[in-house]
Amino acid sequence: MRMYDLIMKKRNGGILSKEEIRFMIEGYTAGSIPDYQMSAMMMAIYFRGMNEEETLQLTMAMAESGDTLDLSAIEGIKVDKHSTGGVGDKTSLALTPMVAACGVKIAKMSGRGLGHTGGTIDKLESFNGFSTGIETRDFIKNVNEIGISIMGQTKDLAPADKLLYALRDVTATVDNMSLIASSIMSKKLAAGADAIVLDVKTGSGAFMKAEEDAFALAKEMLTIGKNAGRSMMAVVSDMDQPLGYAVGNALEVKEAIDTLKGQGPADFTELCMTLGSCMLMAGGVASDYEQAREMLKDVIENGSALEKLADFVEAQGGDRQTVYEPERLPKATGILEVKAQKEGFIRKIICDEVGICSLILGGGRETKESEIDLSVGIVLCRKTGDYVKKGDVLAHIHYNDENKMLACKERLLAAYEIGDEKNTERPVIFGILN
Amino acid sequence: MRMYDLIMKKRNGGILSKEEIRFMIEGYTAGSIPDYQMSAMMMAIYFRGMNEEETLQLTMAMAESGDTLDLSAIEGIKVDKHSTGGVGDKTSLALTPMVAACGVKIAKMSGRGLGHTGGTIDKLESFNGFSTGIETRDFIKNVNEIGISIMGQTKDLAPADKLLYALRDVTATVDNMSLIASSIMSKKLAAGADAIVLDVKTGSGAFMKAEEDAFALAKEMLTIGKNAGRSMMAVVSDMDQPLGYAVGNALEVKEAIDTLKGQGPADFTELCMTLGSCMLMAGGVASDYEQAREMLKDVIENGSALEKLADFVEAQGGDRQTVYEPERLPKATGILEVKAQKEGFIRKIICDEVGICSLILGGGRETKESEIDLSVGIVLCRKTGDYVKKGDVLAHIHYNDENKMLACKERLLAAYEIGDEKNTERPVIFGILN
Repeated sequence: MRMYDLIMKKRNGGILSKEEIRFMIEGYTAGSIPDYQMSAMMMAIYFRGMNEEETLQLTMAMAESGDTLDLSAIEGIKVDKHSTGGVGDKTSLALTPMVAACGVKIAKMSGRGLGHTGGTIDKLESFNGFSTGIETRDFIKNVNEIGISIMGQTKDLAPADKLLYALRDVTATVDNMSLIASSIMSKKLAAGADAIVLDVKTGSGAFMKAEEDAFALAKEMLTIGKNAGRSMMAVVSDMDQPLGYAVGNALEVKEAIDTLKGQGPADFTELCMTLGSCMLMAGGVASDYEQAREMLKDVIENGSALEKLADFVEAQGGDRQTVYEPERLPKATGILEVKAQKEGFIRKIICDEVGICSLILGGGRETKESEIDLSVGIVLCRKTGDYVKKGDVLAHIHYNDENKMLACKERLLAAYEIGDEKNTERPVIFGILN
Repeated sequence: MRMYDLIMKKRNGGILSKEEIRFMIEGYTAGSIPDYQMSAMMMAIYFRGMNEEETLQLTMAMAESGDTLDLSAIEGIKVDKHSTGGVGDKTSLALTPMVAACGVKIAKMSGRGLGHTGGTIDKLESFNGFSTGIETRDFIKNVNEIGISIMGQTKDLAPADKLLYALRDVTATVDNMSLIASSIMSKKLAAGADAIVLDVKTGSGAFMKAEEDAFALAKEMLTIGKNAGRSMMAVVSDMDQPLGYAVGNALEVKEAIDTLKGQGPADFTELCMTLGSCMLMAGGVASDYEQAREMLKDVIENGSALEKLADFVEAQGGDRQTVYEPERLPKATGILEVKAQKEGFIRKIICDEVGICSLILGGGRETKESEIDLSVGIVLCRKTGDYVKKGDVLAHIHYNDENKMLACKERLLAAYEIGDEKNTERPVIFGILN
């Protein structure tokens, strides 16, 4: 088999077989197929597309290109969740304890933040002593005993995807639905869960700006997962403005804790309830959506979800008391009120800009090597659709550095678009697919 | 400027500017743009195409990526010829002396053979002592004094094209009309002639199998040349069977000499007359086709074309007497008659297979480093459309090695397709374009 012939085949609109896709992915991972052939192939796929079977085979080949996690030592149905990401997305922090409190096993791998979007692992490190660098043995033990564990992605998880994504990123071959879906799903399949619930974001702050693209990606991933024998559900949710109010590591942890006490922002709470319901159904502990929502409401009201978070934090070396006394979280030295400079309806809050504000304050990583400041960030007071008068507080900036705060303030004000007419309201949840 | 943005632009159907194309070709030649970005670009161009202006700019950028030949020290209009190549194509050997004898200046760069097609330089080396490794100074002096000189391609002629072609060759991005045309034309433009006559082959033994593709390529190249300010003509000619009878270096020289004496094969003579007429018109020594043909007939009949070949050979260190005594050419030790094994019409002679037969005998290069045997080859006696009886001689194999001869014989017999019905006759010349 020669890579040249495979490129030619795909270029001419042919369909690659399982064996051909394996040959390509194994050769590329091993270094016997050079970047320049793979990038030509990626561009040919961009133009010709891949059918359902090709997409599945590409995903499986990438999933099996490195270590795969064997979760068979965990009893019951293991449910994973994946979000396509956005600003203020602290969902895993509140959602996983809620779901685990209802009896579904959560064995999850998470990543760190890069650029203007945060990562679950960084946020969790706001708990003093917390570590995601645990052994697989302890990871499995924790899930069996507490019902939840989150570890950092192992280096050798789907290495073909890492290589391929880096190549696509510099050759303008990222935006193809099959390639995006197979990249996400290869890591999820390698991580070993029985059921996967997807949160596909849509809106100006999402990778998929258009609603129809978000639905298309959700469907593509659902199909891959089902064809790979996993139980699947997907939610398409809004990312046209930051999720909830808090953006910044410890600030988001605080908001997640509030949500587990039933005092969280409406949009974020709704998203957790929706994703949580899907996870309970996928995990087989609820038979329908209504029942699932009731169960989630209960674990919030009776405090067991909050306690589950405390148990989880403690099991991974963190300070459980912080869950009950959030004032123990890292705190910034200064808080600035950012005030509206004119009157009107908030028509837009540019997500990416708010993310960059947090990055400017030190709350994110410019490069993989950057140190991050867990205490800083932004807490929005007003969101899209609110009416504000000049001088009303739009947001609070939590900062440790005056200059950074000033740069942040200017950028944050510019991220708010205020006008005379109110925009049509967007739903939190656009749809649920299975 | 970033290569990533250029790939994205072309991928999305945009048009690259002159500056963008220069940036890309200069960066690639300098090594600052990596292969994997260039191969993605080539695949995007394969799908999106390039317009007339982009194709011109790509050609110019490649032509100017290395040395360009300054022929201004040669008086008059310098005419070059390019053939897209084929088996038995010894056209330059007979054509250039004919045209030079009519007063048109020929300053030509030629290449060596590789694989199953021969190269003009190898063929010329059948003249004992002949060298194409001459200095540019002597090259120009010879053209001024004799009217003809042929040198090997300098290493630094259109280096961007060399790099790009090698990359396209392994990434299935060769067959795009703009890329093919710009590759050929970049070298021709760098070689400095004022007028260029193109011989685009069509048929089973040509790069362009289909007649319409050959015409399209001819038009594409004509347009580039004209836009670059050169005087252009193109001929589309047949390559459905080997050209003439002889295939093999010294054997082809012998056939070219016969043709200069007016005793050449009909198809080869006709091609030389047609291309020659175009060159005389492009070179400004004939005002119309009829006049040009008459002039060419004259220089054959009065022996001045043959003498021009002798002068040319002598000027580059070769033995001029060989032109008058072709028995001085390298000779193989054995000649085998290959006989028809059944009766019928010759329906097809597979060009590439005849080329490979010559390669097997030692007359071609398997790799760039191979030594070649100038004496061996095949001389066909019967061609497509001829009726043969069982036992009639189809061809002679000139060989120096029995085993190679036996392998060649088997393959040569298989290259002939003999059947009951005669194929429709193909013309030698499909069309002339300007």
